[in-house]
Amino acid sequence: MNIITISREFGSGGRELGKRMADILGWDYYDREIIDTVAAEEGLDADYVQAVLERHEWWTVPVTFQRSFAISGSPSTELLVKEKEVIQRIGQAGRDCIIVGRNADYYLRQLRPFRIFVCADPEAKLRRCRDRAKEPMTDREIEKQIKRIDKNRATIRELVVGDRWADRNSFHLMVNTSDWEIKQLAPAVADFAKRYFAVNP
Amino acid sequence: MNIITISREFGSGGRELGKRMADILGWDYYDREIIDTVAAEEGLDADYVQAVLERHEWWTVPVTFQRSFAISGSPSTELLVKEKEVIQRIGQAGRDCIIVGRNADYYLRQLRPFRIFVCADPEAKLRRCRDRAKEPMTDREIEKQIKRIDKNRATIRELVVGDRWADRNSFHLMVNTSDWEIKQLAPAVADFAKRYFAVNP
Repeated sequence: MNIITISREFGSGGRELGKRMADILGWDYYDREIIDTVAAEEGLDADYVQAVLERHEWWTVPVTFQRSFAISGSPSTELLVKEKEVIQRIGQAGRDCIIVGRNADYYLRQLRPFRIFVCADPEAKLRRCRDRAKEPMTDREIEKQIKRIDKNRATIRELVVGDRWADRNSFHLMVNTSDWEIKQLAPAVADFAKRYFAVNP
Repeated sequence: MNIITISREFGSGGRELGKRMADILGWDYYDREIIDTVAAEEGLDADYVQAVLERHEWWTVPVTFQRSFAISGSPSTELLVKEKEVIQRIGQAGRDCIIVGRNADYYLRQLRPFRIFVCADPEAKLRRCRDRAKEPMTDREIEKQIKRIDKNRATIRELVVGDRWADRNSFHLMVNTSDWEIKQLAPAVADFAKRYFAVNP
C-alpha cells in the first residue's frame, strides 16, 4: 500500500493538487471525508467540527458553539484525538490513498508515506483565495485569513507533532504552485511520487 | 534558454544531483568552474578563492591568507562581486545549463530559472559526509562542519539577497534526498523540471 500525504499553506492549491493526483493515480482521496467521519461518529455537525479543528470559520459558527471556543481557547483535544483515530483507520484499510492535511504524515509515519508540502507566493495565494471566496472580501481580509489559518495549522502541528510547521526536513518534496496551473502540476508530482515508491517499495 | 539553479544544504547531495541532471539533460553544468574563473581572472589561487567565498576550509588556507580573514571577518566583497559577474556572464551566454550554489537563482532571476533547493535529514548528511571525507573526522566534527558551512551560506544569502536562506518561497521545488540514491532521484527531478519548462517557456 502506498500513501501520499499533502500538507499545505492555505490558498496554495494543495487540496486541488491532491484531488487531481488521486484522479490520475486512481487512488482514494481523503480530506473533508475525515471531518465528516469525525462528525458522524461524535454526533456533531460537520461544519462545527471543521470550525473547531481548523478554527478558520469562527464567524460562521453559531453563538452557542462559539462559547465553547471561549472556554477551551484551542481546538478541542477530544476532536483531535478522534481525528487521529480516523486517519489511522484509513492507514489500516491498506488502500493506496492521498490524504490532505490534518498531520496525517505524522499519524501514519510507520507506513512511510510520501510526504509533500505545497506552498505558493503570497500574490498567488491571494489571487487563488480571491477567485474562490464565497462572499466578497477585501485583499486585506484575505491576507489576514491566510495568516490566521496557517498560524492555526502551525499551532496544531506543534501541539500534536512537536514540530515546526512547514519544516523542510519533515517532507520529501516541497512544491511551489505559483508558476503552474494545478492541472499541469498534478501529473508532474504524481510521476515524481511514482518514482519514489518504485525506489522505496 | 533554460536554466536550473540548485541551492543546497551541505552534505545533501545537491552537487551530485546537479551533475547527474546535467548529464541526463545534456546541459552545461557550473559549480567549481565558477570559482576557477573568478580565480583565473583575479590572478588568485582557486583554493584560496573557494575558501574565502565558502569559508569552510579555513584550516587548509595558508596562514598568510588567514590573516585577511581576520581583518575582513567576512567573505571578500570584491570576490563576491566578481562571482556575480561570472554567473551573469553564464546567463548571457544563452545556453541551457545547471548552476549549483552561489545564489545564481538570485543573480539570474530575470532569466526565470527553475529554482531547486536540496536538503536531507541530519543522519543522511552525516553519512554522506563521512563517506566522502578526505581525512578521518569524528561525527561531531562533521556535524560542526555541516553547521558552519550552512550558517555561512545563510550569512552570504542574507548579505547578497536580503533573504532568509532556504526559504521555501524562494524555490520552485525543495527535494529531500534522504530516501533516494541520487542516481535514481536525478531523472525524477529532471523530468519535473522539463515539465516546468514546457509550461513556462
